[in-house]
Amino acid sequence: MSGTAQIGVTGLAVMGRNLARNFARNGFTVAVHNRTASRTDALVKEFGDEGTFVAAHTPEEFVAALERPRRLMIMVKAGDPTDAVIQEFAPLLEDGDVIIDGGNAHFEDTRRREKELRERGIHFVGAGISGGEEGALHGPSIMPGGSAESYASLGPMLERIAAKAEDGAPCVTHIGPDGAGHFVKMVHNGIEYADMQLIAEAYQLLRDVAGYSPARIADVFRSWNSGRLDSYLIEITAEVLSHVDAATGEPFVDVVLDRAEQKGTGRWTVQIALDLGVPVSGIAEAVFARSVSGHADLREASRHLAGPTAHRLGEDEAAAFSDRVEQALYASKIVAYTQGFHQISAGSERYDWDIDLGRVASIWRGGCIIRAAFLDRITSAYEARPGLPVLLSDKSFAEEIAAAQDDWRTVIATAVTQGVPTPAFAATLAYYDSLRAERLPAALTQGQRDYFGAHTYHRTDRDGTFHTLWGGEKNEVES
Amino acid sequence: MSGTAQIGVTGLAVMGRNLARNFARNGFTVAVHNRTASRTDALVKEFGDEGTFVAAHTPEEFVAALERPRRLMIMVKAGDPTDAVIQEFAPLLEDGDVIIDGGNAHFEDTRRREKELRERGIHFVGAGISGGEEGALHGPSIMPGGSAESYASLGPMLERIAAKAEDGAPCVTHIGPDGAGHFVKMVHNGIEYADMQLIAEAYQLLRDVAGYSPARIADVFRSWNSGRLDSYLIEITAEVLSHVDAATGEPFVDVVLDRAEQKGTGRWTVQIALDLGVPVSGIAEAVFARSVSGHADLREASRHLAGPTAHRLGEDEAAAFSDRVEQALYASKIVAYTQGFHQISAGSERYDWDIDLGRVASIWRGGCIIRAAFLDRITSAYEARPGLPVLLSDKSFAEEIAAAQDDWRTVIATAVTQGVPTPAFAATLAYYDSLRAERLPAALTQGQRDYFGAHTYHRTDRDGTFHTLWGGEKNEVES
Repeated sequence: MSGTAQIGVTGLAVMGRNLARNFARNGFTVAVHNRTASRTDALVKEFGDEGTFVAAHTPEEFVAALERPRRLMIMVKAGDPTDAVIQEFAPLLEDGDVIIDGGNAHFEDTRRREKELRERGIHFVGAGISGGEEGALHGPSIMPGGSAESYASLGPMLERIAAKAEDGAPCVTHIGPDGAGHFVKMVHNGIEYADMQLIAEAYQLLRDVAGYSPARIADVFRSWNSGRLDSYLIEITAEVLSHVDAATGEPFVDVVLDRAEQKGTGRWTVQIALDLGVPVSGIAEAVFARSVSGHADLREASRHLAGPTAHRLGEDEAAAFSDRVEQALYASKIVAYTQGFHQISAGSERYDWDIDLGRVASIWRGGCIIRAAFLDRITSAYEARPGLPVLLSDKSFAEEIAAAQDDWRTVIATAVTQGVPTPAFAATLAYYDSLRAERLPAALTQGQRDYFGAHTYHRTDRDGTFHTLWGGEKNEVES
Repeated sequence: MSGTAQIGVTGLAVMGRNLARNFARNGFTVAVHNRTASRTDALVKEFGDEGTFVAAHTPEEFVAALERPRRLMIMVKAGDPTDAVIQEFAPLLEDGDVIIDGGNAHFEDTRRREKELRERGIHFVGAGISGGEEGALHGPSIMPGGSAESYASLGPMLERIAAKAEDGAPCVTHIGPDGAGHFVKMVHNGIEYADMQLIAEAYQLLRDVAGYSPARIADVFRSWNSGRLDSYLIEITAEVLSHVDAATGEPFVDVVLDRAEQKGTGRWTVQIALDLGVPVSGIAEAVFARSVSGHADLREASRHLAGPTAHRLGEDEAAAFSDRVEQALYASKIVAYTQGFHQISAGSERYDWDIDLGRVASIWRGGCIIRAAFLDRITSAYEARPGLPVLLSDKSFAEEIAAAQDDWRTVIATAVTQGVPTPAFAATLAYYDSLRAERLPAALTQGQRDYFGAHTYHRTDRDGTFHTLWGGEKNEVES
């Protein structure tokens, strides 16, 4: 027996409810189910006029409501709850049915689940969904991973509910097999961490060095938002900075406790990057910066530590400095994205996903937190050269950094001298300078490792693996 | 039946063989065993006159050779081989016997093994051993974790074979229960990565900015080694830098390929720090620097990227700059150790290990790679204030950093301006400036998170969790 619903959503907390409504509003018949049935009924009662819902009160009813092949979207918490729901529904499904996990799963879990379900004849699609509650309702950026066959069945529906970029293209694409979608979503979040930290450092510099008020910095961000930095995050930064706290009359940003929280995907990004041997220092510094801010005890114990005397700039100098900060922010942003795309490329290679990096950038243009005009540039770079080994070596980015680098360096040198912490600015510049260095001191590191641990080294002038007998006459032996 | 050997070593590759010899040379009767029996016989044949060995050719012989309670040390590869050997020997052991794993195990594996064996009445000691082959033979730094009872039986023997610090104290202590020893060894290695990277950056600055030759830089390091930076790593840096390649007549460091390798404990340190919410940016940058150096394709693609024009200093300026680099290196080193000890403290708290941080510093004074005069200072800091929340807030370190900070900042600003990559210098300074900051831009980050994801925030002026309704009149609600 099969029903009429083209898609089913189980798990009707705010993300699941909004996705179900999004499907319904786009003309699909949507079966809805929740462990607590009252939530199912509440959805239909409140939003039933938005489209066609089929309320299901048991797993069996839910499955029976779906047309074949069934498309069943799970919107529950990542981890054990997801496994529990899969185990509950899988026995009720048939060959060729599709389970979609729209939660924030770790891609390794997605790989495991996809494999298990594939062996039972069921397609499993791990779909990263970005855009929060609003995105879920009005159009998120969707990163589905899974079999090509499942995308053929599911893709057209996702393209309907996804955000549309300015050129009208839906912000969804088949990322690749098994865990590819959740992997890309993870790196998206890591990049988001870096983007936010860079903005935070730019703000602090304008505050401490230029001496600007939050309201004035909001104006600066607004002007940046009409240029190459045009993006959702820059836009909302201006909104947050211009907001005045009603209770105190103070700038909102000054009454908020400066202790940033995190939910884990930034941390995952760095941990996986370490496994893949990909340096993501900008993302790592962003994650660490949140940690530092949360260690109230360490900060309290460190308040007395010596710092330099602050030097506030005059009005004209401040304006010039503000322009320099824009250059620094842009250059560091290019590096942060370079590192993130390197990680996607490395993941794709490790897991044989064949991810199209340009397509990834293009589906982030709408719906998600890091949506930005800038992403078109990344797409162009990869379209111009699909095997581009490092994003910032793209001619057009390289030219922009070349034009920005004096200001970039001046801003960071100023921060360092004046005691304003800019860990992500500094890390991204160091990465840039490391990549372009003719020689790195890694040669000394290898020499030390050979000295204390006989770990051997390679030579620049001939092949082979060598060891110096440091204890004696320092003769070199081939090993 | 029980034998006469006070300790047994199974796994006679270089580390196991040297530890066995070390025990024998210190007067203990040592049972030796290896899967390939010829290696056992070779050991006894070659080194039998160093002490009393009992060659065992089967697991049964090996176990029978040990006095009760048996002390059986496993020196095989970390991971599955260790589990295999444990499974082979455990059934032959009796209540109260002790298995010691002297390999580089992940502390989570050690926790699992300890628990399993404890339930079978067997003590399991995960012992981090640092110092490489030479240390194993002449005296390593040993970090054993496990039950207090097992340390009572084993500790006096380890104290005999361990390195001795300058004051004669053995470089071993009971670190804490289960995985504590391997955890501390892991962080030791992470700190070692940071230490080496900081030295590498100092070298590069002296080369590129001061314009010194490797031989001259060797002299600089030699002079530093007679001051507060006195340490094994500084000493061998001078050795490596003064070495001339026989084949080419060039400085050795110039013929070594600048591609640093790594074996994984640095990466583990950062991954675990992320799980613990501990910012270890100096260690992370050291790990990333090795990764960057190894990405030949990215570096090749980036050679054309724009950099500043180098500015070589005159002779007097160079000498002054060299002194500044010493200040920077010392200040960054204090921060790197601060981060590492924060991680040990956080691990101790998470796993209820009750680790004595001052003792940890004191057993690193001899035998291991990071042995240094400096470690006495850390011991003193924790002895003066056992609950010290952050190492660099210790009065004496704080004073030194206060004296160093102008130079520290000048050196990093110079590196940034001149395009010399100093990721670890910059990261450690940014950490320092973050800790001492009155306000961090984390408040803006929280504002953004509340804007796009309703993640809520706290206020500075009253308790509670708040959310601003950004879409409308921007009223604040308590949640």
